[in-house]
Amino acid sequence: MKRVKLTVAYDGTNYCGWQVQPGVETVEGVLNTTISNFLHREVKVIGASRTDSGVHAYGNVAVFDVEDRYRAEIFANALNTFLPPDIVIQSSEEVPLDWHPRHCDCRKTYEYRILNRSHRDPLRKDHTMFYYKKLDVESMKEAAGALVGEHDFKSFCSVKTTVESTIRTIYACDVICEENPMDPLGGRLITIRITGNGFLYNMVRIIAGTLLQVGTGKIAKESIPSMLEAKDREASGPTAPPEGLTLMQIIYER
Amino acid sequence: MKRVKLTVAYDGTNYCGWQVQPGVETVEGVLNTTISNFLHREVKVIGASRTDSGVHAYGNVAVFDVEDRYRAEIFANALNTFLPPDIVIQSSEEVPLDWHPRHCDCRKTYEYRILNRSHRDPLRKDHTMFYYKKLDVESMKEAAGALVGEHDFKSFCSVKTTVESTIRTIYACDVICEENPMDPLGGRLITIRITGNGFLYNMVRIIAGTLLQVGTGKIAKESIPSMLEAKDREASGPTAPPEGLTLMQIIYER
Repeated sequence: MKRVKLTVAYDGTNYCGWQVQPGVETVEGVLNTTISNFLHREVKVIGASRTDSGVHAYGNVAVFDVEDRYRAEIFANALNTFLPPDIVIQSSEEVPLDWHPRHCDCRKTYEYRILNRSHRDPLRKDHTMFYYKKLDVESMKEAAGALVGEHDFKSFCSVKTTVESTIRTIYACDVICEENPMDPLGGRLITIRITGNGFLYNMVRIIAGTLLQVGTGKIAKESIPSMLEAKDREASGPTAPPEGLTLMQIIYER
Repeated sequence: MKRVKLTVAYDGTNYCGWQVQPGVETVEGVLNTTISNFLHREVKVIGASRTDSGVHAYGNVAVFDVEDRYRAEIFANALNTFLPPDIVIQSSEEVPLDWHPRHCDCRKTYEYRILNRSHRDPLRKDHTMFYYKKLDVESMKEAAGALVGEHDFKSFCSVKTTVESTIRTIYACDVICEENPMDPLGGRLITIRITGNGFLYNMVRIIAGTLLQVGTGKIAKESIPSMLEAKDREASGPTAPPEGLTLMQIIYER
């Protein structure tokens, strides 16, 4: 046997998230069915990130095991022939049989996109959160910087979480503002790009919701340290909607 | 009465183009129905560009007439409440009663987007043309430059066209190449941005298909002048698919 690592991109709009659940369409479910049909036996992938309903990915990771006679590299093109257009394997490669996408040290990068514009943009409706009042990007940048480092992110995770430790390290949290010269409304795409060694349940969406309120002036840009200190979900801002979120890449140390 | 000018953005994926046709959903048809329902009488808009099936717009223009008691500015928000999410009015303003979106001098800008990448990107599938082999962008830029100026574009329009004159002026034709540092496949978004005083039937898609073949090396970068000279549709490249095309803006001289 050998283990195949897939890098998986998907538009999450029409899926109830990554993880298999009875009665609904999920990205993991579609992968399992497609690979099982291709190999004529039941296959279950192991995924790196269980993204929520409506969340997108460029670079989620999944592994499965195959007989030695298959070359790992063929699976990207082979599976893409059978996958729906909103799930596309970006690459397939062999990894050691004991390699596990959730048990290896890694850096994950997410992007949360806010379309800041007086009217909605139908071409970006599925991949951005829309916000119509002008946001103070400089304050958002300053607040984002205070998240960098090793912190207890208990205030920035869903109360539903069940993990033992809520300590994580954020390597970078940048707020990038792009203007489109073709846009007569002067709209801006504000991207929160965040890289860390792991993220708690809803953590990026709560960070995005908090930075959004910094941008509106509802939350002071200096208040991130006291929010971290509080270790209480009530201390931070709301959870931003899923459509703005994309898991960009996962870089493993081995 | 007063005349209202709408700037209309839409994702053309699920529409059979702009123009009303029996039995199918069109952008113009949805606008007519929505405005008629809102005003409780039958209204038919006059559009600037009859975009093809699957083509998108940021800034198509349509006008209709209303009773004096309505302020023109209310229509953007009012209609957006009832329009589907893939059609969004960007602005509404009053214009003179004799103003016609197809009979006034204007500059139209289109963008044709090519996703040049070894695998498809599910997040951009509806708004880009996918091409997997690496394109020679420098040659595409050089060829694009030869289209600028006043020319007879007979070689770059569908044989189905019925217009009297095929002479048009192209003010600019730029090829812009953007790389995404987050993309492990080194993918590039190649945008052909073209501004002119008017475009013939399928003209931008034929230009895009021709520049694409310049990028692959199938057509020499020096061959645009002889293609223009030929005044024959057979002389130019294929018509690129609709999903890559977006009507960006129409700027009127008055």
